Amino acid sequence: MDELALLQHLLQGVATQAEGLLAGVGDDCAVLAASGSRDWLITTDALVEGIHFRREWASWEAIGRKSALVNISDIAAMGGRPRFCLVTLAIPDDLPVPAVMEFYCGLRAAADQFQMTVIGGDTVQGRKSFCASITAVGEVPHGRAVYRRGARPGDGCYVTGALGGATIGLEALQRRLSAATYGPFIERHMRPTPRVAAGQWLTATGCVTSMIDLSDGLLTDLERVAAASGVGARLEAVRIPLFPEMSPVAEGWKRSPIAIACASGEEYELAFTVAGAREYAFQRFLPAAEKTLGHAITRIGAITQERGVAVVDPEGRPLELTQRGFVHQFRDA
Amino acid sequence: MDELALLQHLLQGVATQAEGLLAGVGDDCAVLAASGSRDWLITTDALVEGIHFRREWASWEAIGRKSALVNISDIAAMGGRPRFCLVTLAIPDDLPVPAVMEFYCGLRAAADQFQMTVIGGDTVQGRKSFCASITAVGEVPHGRAVYRRGARPGDGCYVTGALGGATIGLEALQRRLSAATYGPFIERHMRPTPRVAAGQWLTATGCVTSMIDLSDGLLTDLERVAAASGVGARLEAVRIPLFPEMSPVAEGWKRSPIAIACASGEEYELAFTVAGAREYAFQRFLPAAEKTLGHAITRIGAITQERGVAVVDPEGRPLELTQRGFVHQFRDA
Repeated sequence: MDELALLQHLLQGVATQAEGLLAGVGDDCAVLAASGSRDWLITTDALVEGIHFRREWASWEAIGRKSALVNISDIAAMGGRPRFCLVTLAIPDDLPVPAVMEFYCGLRAAADQFQMTVIGGDTVQGRKSFCASITAVGEVPHGRAVYRRGARPGDGCYVTGALGGATIGLEALQRRLSAATYGPFIERHMRPTPRVAAGQWLTATGCVTSMIDLSDGLLTDLERVAAASGVGARLEAVRIPLFPEMSPVAEGWKRSPIAIACASGEEYELAFTVAGAREYAFQRFLPAAEKTLGHAITRIGAITQERGVAVVDPEGRPLELTQRGFVHQFRDA
Repeated sequence: MDELALLQHLLQGVATQAEGLLAGVGDDCAVLAASGSRDWLITTDALVEGIHFRREWASWEAIGRKSALVNISDIAAMGGRPRFCLVTLAIPDDLPVPAVMEFYCGLRAAADQFQMTVIGGDTVQGRKSFCASITAVGEVPHGRAVYRRGARPGDGCYVTGALGGATIGLEALQRRLSAATYGPFIERHMRPTPRVAAGQWLTATGCVTSMIDLSDGLLTDLERVAAASGVGARLEAVRIPLFPEMSPVAEGWKRSPIAIACASGEEYELAFTVAGAREYAFQRFLPAAEKTLGHAITRIGAITQERGVAVVDPEGRPLELTQRGFVHQFRDA
């Protein structure tokens, strides 16, 4: 373990048992006990200009919107509903105030869309680059938050939506490719659609044993679920849902669409597991749920006793995927 | 109202009424409803290297410690007890990891001292300067949080501890004066003592009508209480408690000790008001409380119907204090 990994470990996982704290360590949100009917979820995310975004790639409005959406996705991943946020900005002298206003308006638009109220924050002078740190508070029915740690061998493994589009979009921005041609991919990268309704619906079924949002790539994030649960996963390559029109683009770039879909960061879809004994009932409800939610929910494999996350071809042979996760530009890798 | 003030207003005070939200606007913390027996307090503060601190002034350990203490002070100001925090760091490439470890150890030491558990955070790559954003969560008995808005004409106005030392310490650092001579002042600047026990004790009396922690100076912060409550205050200059040995230093610098005490930022003492009808009983308990808490609690004036915060001499003449608040180096002004 290198120094920085140790530090991240210290910062992200030092909570011990404490009265009123239902979960602190290594999940998408910390969970605080509230009244008999609900618990509060808390999560925080930072973004730094020049590291996580570039002014020339997107409007400040789009950057502000995305900064709220990625926090909302963390709340969705626990089955919660966004409620409040605190916004801390470090604003360099040379950044025109209208840019910050735009950022704020984008953030507010996303917050409003998900009925999340800005309840506080801090505005300080920054140096050279703009930094934003957002703390979001969500609400979940008492005792119903879904964690990463509940996957068991035999559970089915599912994902919402379709994968790979965000990476194509990011690379199109990086390579300055035509926005006309790559519009839907760039849109996918810049405007994630946190699966708040799906997260709540899935939680309500009582069938879901673990859940995570895909910020760092399907394999990387499922490895987190597997590690937290003490299990592994076996995914079927042909079942992994690919973002529309992603295959021809990837093939034009001489890349494997499946490899991109498995490693693509910042998708903000949900990956989750369903208790084996409940899969039959769960799948009976899926078509209606997909219709209501407006996006696919796909079974991509199963949880195994054997550790590690493998992706297999139709003959059951593991694919060699060298790139497990994407070190993306916009968020912490 | 200039653009930046409008932005700060937007960021710090947009909460409307929302179910589960007891207070969101313009107080030291937001207050979320919890179980029948408690509410949660949430506050956030950021600090930026080169703006709020300088590497050459203090160890990273001291900076980390202070970053936790200022958040703890916000919780103290609502009568709360610190419970949890989330720590978000943007770490520039050129900052050696041991420096960040030191920062973290200082933060942890302060958190441990006040039984505050680190429950999460985010570590991202930063640019040029180190940024830290801390979100602290506190707990207060249900319905007992003390706000800025409750001061009424006739209430007594009080302050904990003694004022002015933090400004002398900051200026000693800025002027590179001898640490041997100015040690207690520099210590006061670098290691605030959030009045957590006092805040809880004061809240428990049921006599306190409003409270704030002194981050931006007695007059500036009391003006916030006055504005939130729709009142004014009249302070007696001779009653304002001065930090030990502060007067001779201020006079040696040809400055007024009272003016420094009134404007000194980052004191992290509590200023509060006591209902007029309860002052007699409250004052009967004060000596025992001061003994237990280990610091003074001083009546410095009274709340008035007339708006504005005035400081008067023994003849009742208002002092001319040109500097109302201190634009301090370490925190948001």
